[in-house]
Amino acid sequence: MTRPEDFMHEALNEARKALALKEVPVGAVIVKDGVIVGRGHNTRNTDSKITSHAEINAITMASEWLKDWRLEDCSIYVTLEPCAMCAGAIMQSQIKKVYYGALEPKFGAHVSTTHVFDSVNQKTDVFSGILAQESAQLLTEFFQNIR
Amino acid sequence: MTRPEDFMHEALNEARKALALKEVPVGAVIVKDGVIVGRGHNTRNTDSKITSHAEINAITMASEWLKDWRLEDCSIYVTLEPCAMCAGAIMQSQIKKVYYGALEPKFGAHVSTTHVFDSVNQKTDVFSGILAQESAQLLTEFFQNIR
Repeated sequence: MTRPEDFMHEALNEARKALALKEVPVGAVIVKDGVIVGRGHNTRNTDSKITSHAEINAITMASEWLKDWRLEDCSIYVTLEPCAMCAGAIMQSQIKKVYYGALEPKFGAHVSTTHVFDSVNQKTDVFSGILAQESAQLLTEFFQNIR
Repeated sequence: MTRPEDFMHEALNEARKALALKEVPVGAVIVKDGVIVGRGHNTRNTDSKITSHAEINAITMASEWLKDWRLEDCSIYVTLEPCAMCAGAIMQSQIKKVYYGALEPKFGAHVSTTHVFDSVNQKTDVFSGILAQESAQLLTEFFQNIR
Protein backbone atom coordinates (compact mmCIF):
# COMPACT_ATOMS: atom_id res chain seq x y z
CA MET A 1 0.00 0.00 0.00
CA THR A 2 1.92 3.06 -1.16
CA ARG A 3 -0.32 5.24 -3.33
CA PRO A 4 -1.85 8.35 -1.74
CA GLU A 5 -5.28 7.01 -2.74
CA ASP A 6 -4.76 3.87 -0.64
CA PHE A 7 -4.06 5.86 2.51
CA MET A 8 -6.89 8.24 1.67
CA HIS A 9 -9.25 5.23 1.63
CA GLU A 10 -8.13 4.56 5.19
CA ALA A 11 -8.84 8.20 6.08
CA LEU A 12 -12.30 7.81 4.49
CA ASN A 13 -12.88 4.77 6.72
CA GLU A 14 -12.13 7.01 9.69
CA ALA A 15 -14.56 9.63 8.35
CA ARG A 16 -17.26 6.94 8.23
CA LYS A 17 -16.70 6.30 11.94
CA ALA A 18 -17.42 9.99 12.59
CA LEU A 19 -20.58 9.73 10.47
CA ALA A 20 -21.73 6.76 12.58
CA LEU A 21 -21.36 9.02 15.66
CA LYS A 22 -23.39 11.77 13.91
CA GLU A 23 -20.27 13.93 13.81
CA VAL A 24 -19.21 15.92 10.73
CA PRO A 25 -17.50 13.11 8.76
CA VAL A 26 -13.80 13.92 8.57
CA GLY A 27 -11.05 11.32 8.97
CA ALA A 28 -7.26 11.25 8.99
CA VAL A 29 -4.36 8.83 9.11
CA ILE A 30 -0.66 9.44 9.75
CA VAL A 31 1.89 7.40 7.88
CA LYS A 32 5.57 6.75 8.59
CA ASP A 33 7.71 4.56 6.32
CA GLY A 34 4.59 3.27 4.59
CA VAL A 35 2.93 2.21 7.85
CA ILE A 36 -0.08 3.84 9.53
CA VAL A 37 1.04 5.08 12.97
CA GLY A 38 -2.01 7.17 13.86
CA ARG A 39 -5.71 7.31 13.02
CA GLY A 40 -8.39 9.78 13.96
CA HIS A 41 -11.88 10.96 13.19
CA ASN A 42 -13.79 14.02 14.25
CA THR A 43 -15.22 13.57 17.77
CA ARG A 44 -15.78 17.19 18.72
CA ASN A 45 -19.34 16.84 19.94
CA THR A 46 -18.81 13.40 21.46
CA ASP A 47 -15.82 14.71 23.47
CA SER A 48 -17.23 18.25 23.80
CA LYS A 49 -13.72 19.41 22.99
CA ILE A 50 -12.71 21.81 20.22
CA THR A 51 -9.37 20.11 19.61
CA SER A 52 -11.01 16.74 18.83
CA HIS A 53 -10.78 17.24 15.06
CA ALA A 54 -9.68 14.23 12.99
CA GLU A 55 -6.17 15.60 12.37
CA ILE A 56 -5.40 16.38 16.02
CA ASN A 57 -6.82 13.03 17.16
CA ALA A 58 -4.55 11.29 14.64
CA ILE A 59 -1.52 13.40 15.64
CA THR A 60 -2.13 12.63 19.33
CA MET A 61 -2.31 8.89 18.60
CA ALA A 62 0.85 8.96 16.45
CA SER A 63 2.77 10.96 19.10
CA GLU A 64 1.76 8.48 21.78
CA TRP A 65 2.64 5.51 19.57
CA LEU A 66 6.02 6.93 18.51
CA LYS A 67 6.64 8.46 21.98
CA ASP A 68 7.61 11.76 20.36
CA TRP A 69 5.70 14.94 19.57
CA ARG A 70 7.97 15.48 16.55
CA LEU A 71 6.44 13.70 13.56
CA GLU A 72 8.90 15.06 11.01
CA ASP A 73 9.19 11.86 8.97
CA CYS A 74 5.43 11.38 8.82
CA SER A 75 2.77 12.29 6.29
CA ILE A 76 -0.87 13.06 7.10
CA TYR A 77 -3.82 12.06 4.91
CA VAL A 78 -7.04 13.88 5.72
CA THR A 79 -10.35 13.83 3.89
CA LEU A 80 -10.98 17.59 4.14
CA GLU A 81 -8.86 20.75 3.84
CA PRO A 82 -7.52 21.43 7.36
CA CYS A 83 -8.74 24.46 9.34
CA ALA A 84 -6.21 26.96 10.80
CA MET A 85 -6.08 25.09 14.11
CA CYS A 86 -5.28 21.77 12.43
CA ALA A 87 -2.92 23.28 9.85
CA GLY A 88 -1.10 24.92 12.77
CA ALA A 89 -1.04 21.61 14.68
CA ILE A 90 0.39 19.85 11.62
CA MET A 91 3.16 22.47 11.40
CA GLN A 92 3.81 22.34 15.17
CA SER A 93 4.27 18.58 14.92
CA GLN A 94 6.72 19.12 12.03
CA ILE A 95 4.82 16.88 9.59
CA LYS A 96 6.22 17.79 6.17
CA LYS A 97 3.66 16.25 3.78
CA VAL A 98 -0.09 16.80 3.77
CA TYR A 99 -2.52 15.04 1.43
CA TYR A 100 -6.16 16.05 1.57
CA GLY A 101 -9.42 15.48 -0.27
CA ALA A 102 -12.17 18.09 -0.58
CA LEU A 103 -11.89 21.84 -0.13
CA GLU A 104 -13.50 23.46 2.95
CA PRO A 105 -14.75 26.89 1.84
CA LYS A 106 -15.67 28.19 5.32
CA PHE A 107 -12.64 27.32 7.46
CA GLY A 108 -10.08 25.68 5.11
CA ALA A 109 -6.69 27.21 5.83
CA HIS A 110 -4.60 25.85 2.96
CA VAL A 111 -6.15 27.92 0.18
CA SER A 112 -9.85 28.57 0.94
CA THR A 113 -9.72 31.26 3.65
CA THR A 114 -5.99 31.79 4.23
CA HIS A 115 -2.61 30.22 3.42
CA VAL A 116 -1.33 29.04 6.79
CA PHE A 117 1.14 26.51 5.39
CA ASP A 118 3.01 29.29 3.57
CA SER A 119 3.18 31.56 6.60
CA VAL A 120 6.18 30.19 8.42
CA ASN A 121 9.74 29.58 7.37
CA GLN A 122 9.31 25.81 7.26
CA LYS A 123 8.42 23.90 4.15
CA THR A 124 5.27 21.78 4.11
CA ASP A 125 4.28 20.05 0.85
CA VAL A 126 0.53 20.02 0.46
CA PHE A 127 -1.34 17.92 -2.12
CA SER A 128 -5.07 18.48 -2.53
CA GLY A 129 -7.98 16.85 -4.35
CA ILE A 130 -7.21 13.20 -3.49
CA LEU A 131 -10.49 11.24 -3.55
CA ALA A 132 -12.18 14.62 -3.13
CA GLN A 133 -15.50 13.38 -4.50
CA GLU A 134 -15.75 10.50 -2.03
CA SER A 135 -14.94 12.88 0.81
CA ALA A 136 -17.47 15.48 -0.33
CA GLN A 137 -20.10 12.77 -0.80
CA LEU A 138 -19.83 11.74 2.87
CA LEU A 139 -20.25 15.38 3.93
CA THR A 140 -23.29 15.78 1.69
CA GLU A 141 -24.82 12.64 3.23
CA PHE A 142 -24.26 14.07 6.71
CA PHE A 143 -25.73 17.50 5.99
CA GLN A 144 -28.74 15.99 4.17
CA ASN A 145 -29.50 13.78 7.17
CA ILE A 146 -29.39 16.55 9.75
CA ARG A 147 -31.81 18.70 7.77
CA MET B 1 -10.43 43.24 38.75
CA THR B 2 -11.57 44.49 35.39
CA ARG B 3 -8.63 46.07 33.54
CA PRO B 4 -6.92 44.01 30.83
CA GLU B 5 -3.62 44.51 32.71
CA ASP B 6 -5.04 42.81 35.81
CA PHE B 7 -5.95 39.66 33.88
CA MET B 8 -2.65 39.82 32.00
CA HIS B 9 -0.86 39.71 35.37
CA GLU B 10 -2.70 36.44 36.00
CA ALA B 11 -1.57 35.15 32.59
CA LEU B 12 2.01 36.17 33.51
CA ASN B 13 1.68 34.12 36.71
CA GLU B 14 0.77 31.16 34.51
CA ALA B 15 3.81 31.85 32.29
CA ARG B 16 6.02 31.73 35.41
CA LYS B 17 4.69 28.23 36.13
CA ALA B 18 5.88 27.18 32.64
CA LEU B 19 9.28 28.76 33.37
CA ALA B 20 9.54 26.72 36.58
CA LEU B 21 8.99 23.59 34.45
CA LYS B 22 11.72 24.72 32.01
CA GLU B 23 9.06 25.19 29.35
CA VAL B 24 8.91 28.25 27.06
CA PRO B 25 7.14 30.68 29.42
CA VAL B 26 3.73 31.43 27.97
CA GLY B 27 0.56 31.70 30.05
CA ALA B 28 -3.12 32.32 29.45
CA VAL B 29 -6.36 32.87 31.33
CA ILE B 30 -9.95 32.82 30.12
CA VAL B 31 -12.45 35.25 31.59
CA LYS B 32 -16.23 35.22 31.60
CA ASP B 33 -18.27 37.99 33.27
CA GLY B 34 -15.15 39.27 35.01
CA VAL B 35 -14.30 35.86 36.49
CA ILE B 36 -11.40 33.58 35.50
CA VAL B 37 -12.90 30.29 34.25
CA GLY B 38 -9.76 28.73 32.77
CA ARG B 39 -5.99 28.92 33.25
CA GLY B 40 -3.16 27.36 31.35
CA HIS B 41 0.56 27.45 30.77
CA ASN B 42 2.73 25.85 28.15
CA THR B 43 3.40 22.19 29.02
CA ARG B 44 4.38 20.88 25.59
CA ASN B 45 7.57 19.10 26.63
CA THR B 46 6.21 17.97 29.99
CA ASP B 47 3.17 16.41 28.26
CA SER B 48 5.06 15.55 25.04
CA LYS B 49 1.98 16.86 23.26
CA ILE B 50 1.90 19.57 20.59
CA THR B 51 -1.52 20.85 21.65
CA SER B 52 -0.34 21.60 25.20
CA HIS B 53 0.19 25.29 24.49
CA ALA B 54 -0.99 27.76 27.16
CA GLU B 55 -4.06 28.84 25.16
CA ILE B 56 -5.34 25.33 24.44
CA ASN B 57 -4.72 24.22 28.03
CA ALA B 58 -6.76 27.22 29.22
CA ILE B 59 -9.53 26.57 26.66
CA THR B 60 -9.71 22.90 27.71
CA MET B 61 -10.04 23.89 31.37
CA ALA B 62 -12.71 26.52 30.65
CA SER B 63 -14.70 24.08 28.48
CA GLU B 64 -14.62 21.46 31.22
CA TRP B 65 -15.56 24.03 33.87
CA LEU B 66 -18.41 25.53 31.83
CA LYS B 67 -19.38 22.12 30.39
CA ASP B 68 -19.49 23.61 26.88
CA TRP B 69 -16.96 23.81 24.05
CA ARG B 70 -18.52 27.10 23.00
CA LEU B 71 -16.83 29.94 24.87
CA GLU B 72 -18.53 32.76 22.97
CA ASP B 73 -18.97 35.06 25.97
CA CYS B 74 -15.39 34.60 27.08
CA SER B 75 -12.19 36.57 26.54
CA ILE B 76 -8.70 35.13 26.46
CA TYR B 77 -5.61 36.86 27.86
CA VAL B 78 -2.32 35.38 26.68
CA THR B 79 1.21 36.63 27.24
CA LEU B 80 2.38 35.97 23.65
CA GLU B 81 0.90 36.39 20.16
CA PRO B 82 -0.91 33.09 19.41
CA CYS B 83 0.42 30.70 16.75
CA ALA B 84 -1.88 29.52 13.94
CA MET B 85 -2.91 26.42 15.91
CA CYS B 86 -3.92 28.45 18.95
CA ALA B 87 -5.51 31.26 16.92
CA GLY B 88 -7.53 28.57 15.13
CA ALA B 89 -8.47 26.96 18.45
CA ILE B 90 -9.60 30.36 19.79
CA MET B 91 -11.82 30.82 16.71
CA GLN B 92 -13.13 27.23 16.91
CA SER B 93 -14.17 27.86 20.52
CA GLN B 94 -15.93 31.06 19.41
CA ILE B 95 -14.02 33.32 21.81
CA LYS B 96 -14.61 36.84 20.51
CA LYS B 97 -11.96 38.88 22.38
CA VAL B 98 -8.24 38.22 22.51
CA TYR B 99 -5.75 40.25 24.54
CA TYR B 100 -2.08 39.44 24.19
CA GLY B 101 1.33 40.74 25.24
CA ALA B 102 4.48 40.38 23.14
CA LEU B 103 4.73 39.69 19.43
CA GLU B 104 6.02 36.26 18.29
CA PRO B 105 7.98 36.88 15.05
CA LYS B 106 8.47 33.20 14.12
CA PHE B 107 5.00 31.69 14.54
CA GLY B 108 2.68 34.53 15.60
CA ALA B 109 -0.50 34.29 13.54
CA HIS B 110 -2.23 37.57 14.38
CA VAL B 111 0.12 39.88 12.47
CA SER B 112 3.67 38.47 12.52
CA THR B 113 3.51 35.62 9.98
CA THR B 114 -0.12 35.62 8.83
CA HIS B 115 -3.51 37.11 9.74
CA VAL B 116 -5.54 34.10 10.84
CA PHE B 117 -8.13 36.08 12.82
CA ASP B 118 -9.14 37.97 9.68
CA SER B 119 -9.49 34.84 7.56
CA VAL B 120 -12.95 33.66 8.47
CA ASN B 121 -16.32 35.31 8.39
CA GLN B 122 -16.50 35.64 12.16
CA LYS B 123 -15.41 38.72 14.04
CA THR B 124 -12.68 38.40 16.68
CA ASP B 125 -11.42 41.55 18.39
CA VAL B 126 -7.71 41.33 19.06
CA PHE B 127 -5.79 43.72 21.33
CA SER B 128 -2.00 43.46 21.42
CA GLY B 129 0.87 44.90 23.44
CA ILE B 130 -0.61 44.46 26.93
CA LEU B 131 2.26 44.13 29.44
CA ALA B 132 4.36 43.16 26.43
CA GLN B 133 7.64 44.05 28.16
CA GLU B 134 6.96 41.80 31.15
CA SER B 135 6.06 38.95 28.80
CA ALA B 136 9.15 39.44 26.64
CA GLN B 137 11.34 39.68 29.75
CA LEU B 138 10.24 36.20 30.88
CA LEU B 139 11.06 34.79 27.44
CA THR B 140 14.49 36.46 27.47
CA GLU B 141 15.17 34.93 30.89
CA PHE B 142 14.24 31.50 29.56
CA PHE B 143 16.36 31.69 26.43
CA GLN B 144 19.35 33.09 28.35
CA ASN B 145 19.19 30.20 30.81
CA ILE B 146 19.07 27.45 28.21
CA ARG B 147 22.14 28.84 26.44
